[in-house]
Amino acid sequence: MTPRKKLLTLESMNQSVRAATVPILGPLSVRAAEIQREIQEGVYKPFTEITQCSFGDMQAMGYKPCTFLRQVVALSTCPELLESGQFPEDAKTRARAILKTLDDGSVGSYNPDYIAQTLPDKIANFIKRRDNGVPSNPRNIIVSSGTSQAIVSVLSLVVNDEEELNTGILLPVPCYPLYMDTIGLSGAVKVPYYLDEERGWAANVNNIQESLPAARRRCNPKVLCIINPGNPTGHVLTRENIRELIHLAAEENLLIFADEVYQENVFSPGAVFHSIKKVLYEMGPQYSERVQLISVNSISKGISGECGSRVGYIEFVNIDPAVFEVLYILKSFNIPHVIGGLMLEVILDPPQPGDPSYETFFREKQTLLDNLSEKARSTEEILNQVPGIHCNPIQGALYAFPRVQIPGRAIRLAQDRGQEPDDFYCHRLLEEAGIVLCTGNSFGQAAGTYHFRIALLHPINELKSILQKITEFHAKFMAEYS
Amino acid sequence: MTPRKKLLTLESMNQSVRAATVPILGPLSVRAAEIQREIQEGVYKPFTEITQCSFGDMQAMGYKPCTFLRQVVALSTCPELLESGQFPEDAKTRARAILKTLDDGSVGSYNPDYIAQTLPDKIANFIKRRDNGVPSNPRNIIVSSGTSQAIVSVLSLVVNDEEELNTGILLPVPCYPLYMDTIGLSGAVKVPYYLDEERGWAANVNNIQESLPAARRRCNPKVLCIINPGNPTGHVLTRENIRELIHLAAEENLLIFADEVYQENVFSPGAVFHSIKKVLYEMGPQYSERVQLISVNSISKGISGECGSRVGYIEFVNIDPAVFEVLYILKSFNIPHVIGGLMLEVILDPPQPGDPSYETFFREKQTLLDNLSEKARSTEEILNQVPGIHCNPIQGALYAFPRVQIPGRAIRLAQDRGQEPDDFYCHRLLEEAGIVLCTGNSFGQAAGTYHFRIALLHPINELKSILQKITEFHAKFMAEYS
Repeated sequence: MTPRKKLLTLESMNQSVRAATVPILGPLSVRAAEIQREIQEGVYKPFTEITQCSFGDMQAMGYKPCTFLRQVVALSTCPELLESGQFPEDAKTRARAILKTLDDGSVGSYNPDYIAQTLPDKIANFIKRRDNGVPSNPRNIIVSSGTSQAIVSVLSLVVNDEEELNTGILLPVPCYPLYMDTIGLSGAVKVPYYLDEERGWAANVNNIQESLPAARRRCNPKVLCIINPGNPTGHVLTRENIRELIHLAAEENLLIFADEVYQENVFSPGAVFHSIKKVLYEMGPQYSERVQLISVNSISKGISGECGSRVGYIEFVNIDPAVFEVLYILKSFNIPHVIGGLMLEVILDPPQPGDPSYETFFREKQTLLDNLSEKARSTEEILNQVPGIHCNPIQGALYAFPRVQIPGRAIRLAQDRGQEPDDFYCHRLLEEAGIVLCTGNSFGQAAGTYHFRIALLHPINELKSILQKITEFHAKFMAEYS
Repeated sequence: MTPRKKLLTLESMNQSVRAATVPILGPLSVRAAEIQREIQEGVYKPFTEITQCSFGDMQAMGYKPCTFLRQVVALSTCPELLESGQFPEDAKTRARAILKTLDDGSVGSYNPDYIAQTLPDKIANFIKRRDNGVPSNPRNIIVSSGTSQAIVSVLSLVVNDEEELNTGILLPVPCYPLYMDTIGLSGAVKVPYYLDEERGWAANVNNIQESLPAARRRCNPKVLCIINPGNPTGHVLTRENIRELIHLAAEENLLIFADEVYQENVFSPGAVFHSIKKVLYEMGPQYSERVQLISVNSISKGISGECGSRVGYIEFVNIDPAVFEVLYILKSFNIPHVIGGLMLEVILDPPQPGDPSYETFFREKQTLLDNLSEKARSTEEILNQVPGIHCNPIQGALYAFPRVQIPGRAIRLAQDRGQEPDDFYCHRLLEEAGIVLCTGNSFGQAAGTYHFRIALLHPINELKSILQKITEFHAKFMAEYS
């Protein structure tokens, strides 16, 4: 046997895969894990534990799941429980109805018809109700294994390698980093458009329009990506702003990709979620019959926060089903799981007034939204009292994305170390207070501005205390480097 | 607004995605669905319903799920049930233990540590037990969203576009069609090696070795794919045959990709499942420290048959973790769901003698294996009595893959219609008896031989009656075309 070089090595492997990175899980997370170990080993720190404020994982932070939803899962998974007196009648009725639609009544089958037909029917009904009767065709809906996977799937349809120019994707800045990563892996080109921080993170349509000629020299801009409510920005687009964006998409022949996963997380008085699709239909047939729209939603956020379930859906508008039905084939490599599917079905059609579980459901939902709203107000208040921090109104989603002033000396010091100034800021905060934030630059931000993202998921008193520590840190930081 | 061509159309979309097809769901399935509709519309057929024998979906065909597994899922999803008297103590204990390892005790969190650390630890323990103590390092294990997705992930590591020659994958023939599809989508090249039907579908190592020089002129053969127990062939490789394959891989510097998803479905007296990894270690350090191996398993088959859960694992042997840890990043786009993860954990560590649930678990497992064994024997017996049909011993997995003789006149007729002869055969069977099989050519078969795959999942009396109808059809077909 001649000794040879191993076949699969770092050098021989697929180099584009090797290059994949997730900026949000960068050096800050690595350092936080190190500090956690150091604390366990008895190294002295000015804090007793790491405080994670970087993830939008509701249940990991103590939010309780929707009782009705979990009951239906338990009943459907373990149908012997249907004989138990322990569950409300509507949960049992729902579980029985779901089991009837499953192959041999089991969540353990592949259930291709449930995934490809039953669920799209239910999702279309939800969309119709949500959009005040705007029609939704189940044939235009595909169940996804969560939004991350949905974005990858949609890009796999849109990005066409055989064309002379690369496919361009207009992306809001700041923007959830997942988009940057998937666009990079897909071979498409990112065309940033800056949200207008001075106007509460509104989308500035003039800016987009003006950037297009330059973009068209280096790529073929095909997709206008809209995230509403915004992540990390927490803004909710007004109907007027959405109309402008749709008008632009029609004028410039752009397909709209709408990430609407936070649609249920709107809690600011006066802020209302308008789906892009509803506004599209309000604009009349010259838009609603022409503008191509792909919208995604999931149950990872919203009122259930079931991140662990990895399930959501994609609705296609004005797109030939032959274009996306190929996803059913690609999906045979990545079929959504059945328990996730039934969770989606239940959360899109929750208990109604008069149902035995309605009161509990409504109370849980209202408590969640009130709690987010209260935390958003407190966060704005606390942060906006700090000289050098400015926080826009937080209308939806689960985060604040305040702007922080960083003194020139700190900027230069960061640059000397090859760091972004807000990386430097967040690393200092981590070392001094044990708090882990996401740095603004991982989402993108206007040149010369610095931000961090903080998830509003800790219980309110803890959150206030975290914000207090950030406030103290900021004052000290400003004093040290001004 | 100038009217323009829509942006995303069949012509403008990604053409390699558009080309994706799943041969197993080809014209036969389409025609079966049509016939089903015709029956509902009152069209006369010589049968009253379509009989699906093409899918390996155990629970869809009436196999009951593992009681203990489902109990633990219900308890973990709906922890209020932990207070109920309805569950055995060991199910409660297990659920409590699992909840302790989850972020804030909830299946609804992303639970990255559970997926990336807790589960790999449990899986490594299972592998060690299975392989009589051969070490397994949790760092070399990644939880997958099922085997289909695992194959795609592994190919994404191995296929290197930047090399001059395309990556070649040595694939058994016949072979589950998923491999052909994913290899096609990945840009790799299929290098078939024929299993030896005359020797019970053994892998003929001489054939493989002899085919390599020609293969090396058109690609760089990097991966030797082994499916054991075989799908569609139902054979179980002997230890000696596995040793030969490992020896070949070492000699020819091939990475072994082992699809071992049917490892628990071995039911023929005398047949034993030997994992490739165990045999690799038995061959001593000159092999076990050098041959690169990637092995996959899932809970879709085995004794739980939880197809709907979409979860499994990949073990990497002799591969630098830096090569595959990139999958954790890619996987942030495709994280396995948490309920699936806990199902995996439970099924890999089922109740033990003395546990309250052991008796039920053992009885369910034994009933399943006895039932498959009985059906395999009956299938062999019935088919081997038919002139012109030959069925090899079925030792494992869930299928029979008999060879059928097709008369010359039928072959010519099929060719006139542009069909494969076994497509013609299976279409005729569908029209005359309403039975849906998978055609041999969708798996690949030696030139001039014809086969079909039948899943052994109908209850035994139904299966016997289906086989009887196939027998009658075959006799008629032979008479008609001889």
